[in-house]
Amino acid sequence: MTYRAPVRDLAFTLEAVAGMADVAATGAFPDYDADVASAVLEAAGQFSEEVLAPLNRIGDQKGSTYANGSVTAAPGFADAYRQFAAGGWTGLSAPTEAGGQALPKALELAAYETVHAANMAFGLCPMLSLASIEALEQVGTQEQKTKYLTKLVSGEWTGAMVLTEPGAGSDLGSLITTATPNGDGTYALNGQKIYITWGDHDATDNIIHLVLARLPDAPKGPKGISLFLTPKFAVNDDGTLGDRNAFRPVGVEHKLGIHASPTCVMSYEGATAELVGQPNQGLAHMFVMMNAARLAVGVEGVGIAERAYQHALAYALDRRQGRSVWTGEANAPIFDHPDVRRMLSVMKAKISAARGICLATGVAADLAKHAGTEEERRRWKGREDLFTPIAKAWSTDVGCEVASMGIQIHGGMGFIEETGAAQYYRDARIAPIYEGTNGIQAMDLVGRKLSMDGGESARALIADMKATLIDLGALYSGKPVERFATAIEAVQDATLWLLDQKADPNAAADVLAAADAYLKLLGDVVGGWMLAKGALAAKAKLDAQDGDPAWLQGKLDLYEVYAANVLGHVSSRLAAIGQGGELLQRMTVEALAG
Amino acid sequence: MTYRAPVRDLAFTLEAVAGMADVAATGAFPDYDADVASAVLEAAGQFSEEVLAPLNRIGDQKGSTYANGSVTAAPGFADAYRQFAAGGWTGLSAPTEAGGQALPKALELAAYETVHAANMAFGLCPMLSLASIEALEQVGTQEQKTKYLTKLVSGEWTGAMVLTEPGAGSDLGSLITTATPNGDGTYALNGQKIYITWGDHDATDNIIHLVLARLPDAPKGPKGISLFLTPKFAVNDDGTLGDRNAFRPVGVEHKLGIHASPTCVMSYEGATAELVGQPNQGLAHMFVMMNAARLAVGVEGVGIAERAYQHALAYALDRRQGRSVWTGEANAPIFDHPDVRRMLSVMKAKISAARGICLATGVAADLAKHAGTEEERRRWKGREDLFTPIAKAWSTDVGCEVASMGIQIHGGMGFIEETGAAQYYRDARIAPIYEGTNGIQAMDLVGRKLSMDGGESARALIADMKATLIDLGALYSGKPVERFATAIEAVQDATLWLLDQKADPNAAADVLAAADAYLKLLGDVVGGWMLAKGALAAKAKLDAQDGDPAWLQGKLDLYEVYAANVLGHVSSRLAAIGQGGELLQRMTVEALAG
Repeated sequence: MTYRAPVRDLAFTLEAVAGMADVAATGAFPDYDADVASAVLEAAGQFSEEVLAPLNRIGDQKGSTYANGSVTAAPGFADAYRQFAAGGWTGLSAPTEAGGQALPKALELAAYETVHAANMAFGLCPMLSLASIEALEQVGTQEQKTKYLTKLVSGEWTGAMVLTEPGAGSDLGSLITTATPNGDGTYALNGQKIYITWGDHDATDNIIHLVLARLPDAPKGPKGISLFLTPKFAVNDDGTLGDRNAFRPVGVEHKLGIHASPTCVMSYEGATAELVGQPNQGLAHMFVMMNAARLAVGVEGVGIAERAYQHALAYALDRRQGRSVWTGEANAPIFDHPDVRRMLSVMKAKISAARGICLATGVAADLAKHAGTEEERRRWKGREDLFTPIAKAWSTDVGCEVASMGIQIHGGMGFIEETGAAQYYRDARIAPIYEGTNGIQAMDLVGRKLSMDGGESARALIADMKATLIDLGALYSGKPVERFATAIEAVQDATLWLLDQKADPNAAADVLAAADAYLKLLGDVVGGWMLAKGALAAKAKLDAQDGDPAWLQGKLDLYEVYAANVLGHVSSRLAAIGQGGELLQRMTVEALAG
Repeated sequence: MTYRAPVRDLAFTLEAVAGMADVAATGAFPDYDADVASAVLEAAGQFSEEVLAPLNRIGDQKGSTYANGSVTAAPGFADAYRQFAAGGWTGLSAPTEAGGQALPKALELAAYETVHAANMAFGLCPMLSLASIEALEQVGTQEQKTKYLTKLVSGEWTGAMVLTEPGAGSDLGSLITTATPNGDGTYALNGQKIYITWGDHDATDNIIHLVLARLPDAPKGPKGISLFLTPKFAVNDDGTLGDRNAFRPVGVEHKLGIHASPTCVMSYEGATAELVGQPNQGLAHMFVMMNAARLAVGVEGVGIAERAYQHALAYALDRRQGRSVWTGEANAPIFDHPDVRRMLSVMKAKISAARGICLATGVAADLAKHAGTEEERRRWKGREDLFTPIAKAWSTDVGCEVASMGIQIHGGMGFIEETGAAQYYRDARIAPIYEGTNGIQAMDLVGRKLSMDGGESARALIADMKATLIDLGALYSGKPVERFATAIEAVQDATLWLLDQKADPNAAADVLAAADAYLKLLGDVVGGWMLAKGALAAKAKLDAQDGDPAWLQGKLDLYEVYAANVLGHVSSRLAAIGQGGELLQRMTVEALAG
């Protein structure tokens, strides 16, 4: 089974669904237009297909290995990484001053979807470099940028995010790694960190760790955390490498999936580090990269789902079993059985919805930086903030769900490791966990994002969806329109209710009890909005005879599939949103016992 | 993490939810009463906890192994199996004439839930013996019973179901293994079979294969399939073992999960076999065991979900992170965060619903055989037939979903294999596939079960649920009652609509397009019915001061959790039920392309 990058779909989603025209119109990306986008996607897709996809299975089987204080990447991965860097793929969105290509973030995300789809374990390495680039670009000193940023952008070195400790996962405020001033402006880091993705490897000469730690006498909790940079090898002023620093991996985890991505336990034993940004502002600085990384994880969900979907579609076209009720053919491809077609159609619809959400979030991020007026930038920042937890959580849930349906379509073969479907199911499972579990995303959404601007961003979203609803009436009549109308109404009701609850200090548990269902409601409905926009754009292209009619008509039908199979969820989301914290509190250990 | 058999819950579900009193009232089980049930469950639970659960992890790590034409069970498994057989666990429901204990099937299922929970890979071995026992008991000759059945009941030998071939999975009608008369009343089997669970192992001296094959000149397709019995070692008339038969495993599959359960590729090379039952009636005979096995697979789903749930609950009580909005405690157990409590409560509610459905199906199976009048037996047979695909499919989906939530509650730890949560997620994934994929179950439900008696069984179910709805009004007011009422109405509407469609030959694809959603609708609502019956029984016990009040109150609250989090799905099911085959047919390869 070969992975084929969905270049046409990605370009369509960027332009017609996510709204790249607005990004181009800012003038901030003079090198960007739709043709450039297609060329970039084509080239990225080709690299993913030809170099990364063929390594996916061996990466799963052999994994990265740890021995004697260092990690060796899975067979072929180090070489593939160097080709990746040489191709300029680590600097797509980085500023030209740092050697980047200054292309829109949204285009980079679309290109990276193909990387994650081809080889999710590989993709994590550059993904975390991009997050490090984002952080250094925003809060690094000029010297830090000169010394480190250019090498990260060129891909000569990689970056790692070093946050979690055994006692500090979702609650980073309780971390205890220390940073002690050395007296020369540098600091000595001491502590143990876990879950450090690509924390060590042999693909590059140096690895830059961005580490959260506490200064002496820092306040307790989240307000006493600072961000530090510590390189695996010291960097001399002329850019050459000096001594090995005092940190090392002490092991890699044996995981359910992404075996080729080394998940390191790291020990810092007086590692020499520089402060990045302001003392005690580490958590805020880290969130600069966390937000980028969360969106990137959402794209991982889309990528792994696309891969699983393609695998299942190919199998369904090949495998013959039973008589088709449609064609009457005996021993028909299972693709011609309605229940299999249903699964594939729903998979495709959810992938398209998640892709739309993630790329629309990328567009919002670009516009939050580059829109023409401060008012517009503020508005787009609100959209980016509101969408980021949805893009992360909803898309990674789709990744797991689609990978599971992919197994199901294979029947017994799906459970056999050699088939490959099982790897996607295993790999996909991490994405709802890392960069903030999906439960944390939901709490972020209802706890912070929803009310950050008095609910303005949510109201703007509802207004935008209503505008699309009106246009939709020209395409469909009856249920496909009614379902979107009902769905928008559900978002409106739930949003108003939640904003009311948030005003009541006694209702904090009710809000938290609603968080998961509210995020899923928004994901379902915004996903439907994306497909509706796709259908409208496809209709315009059909009318203009611009593109493959069967494929464009498919966009119209895909919205209908989504409306029938996903938008109906809104009533179950509303029921769960209103369940209340008190009911859950009554579910004590005694009540839950066997 | 130790598995604790939920003996109290199992006994409660049998008596108060599934309706074992009706089984006892038949008089067909003179040795059965509620105390016997508790004693059996207690003893089974103890065996599962002490002998089987400790082998679960090593079974996953080492697996069963294949070398030189034979399979060796995972470390400790052969010995555990012999203890299991010695304890009488292979003969719980078998007739006393064959050495069994003649207890109700439903009790056996409840006892086996603990086996599957403790060690799903182990449980498959006796589970398939039970299916073989069921088939031989119903269609074997007296000689076959004497020669083979008693050894299967005692557990001295095991049985295997040998159906699938590389070209014949869901469509068994296309199998090509041949059975050629040897002239002495025996047959020579030739062919290759795949996915033969515990097809070979070293735990017993002999293994009895029940094999589907074709006689010479048999009609093509499903009507030309016969059932054969072929033992690994010939059995002499005095019961001693003779020559090794001409079949052998040629490999075992490398699977996503249940590593300790050998999934054999078997080669039959002139294996000497006996015909079982009538020529060309093999598929019908096999369905005798398929139905039993399907229900047993549903129970596997419940078992693995229970195990994953217990693991997650223990972790949530132990792991501390963040401040609780309920208790105000800093660094609180994550159990005290509403979103974690929501997950655990929903897991528990779905497990309880699936347990209720499976055990109610077991009760229906017992009553289909033993109810006092033919009319009652017919009615209960209808219930058993209607419920079997739901029990299989809905419960195994719950198995996967709960195992996935179990990982999620563990956060990053969930993705680490050593934690154990990942094994449940991997193991659980097979259950929606084997013994007929869940898509096949849905097609069986809408294609055969729903209309087998003109819809009478479905109407009887709706009437029974309505009776419970009336009682429910005494327990709750408002939403918990309204949601069940709406849910029953949805079942009624969908059922009438489907029965209408089935009368229209042009609507076959519409029915198949609705199958999955209709099965899920029935599962959701019948599951709610089970919890409602549990709540009513718990209330009666509370009023009678009969039992732990916190635990009994928990049953009332659990129904509310289910009503808020699951019953709301009915509108999404209805939308998908009505999507129509034509919409799916429009989703061509061109439309689905990237």
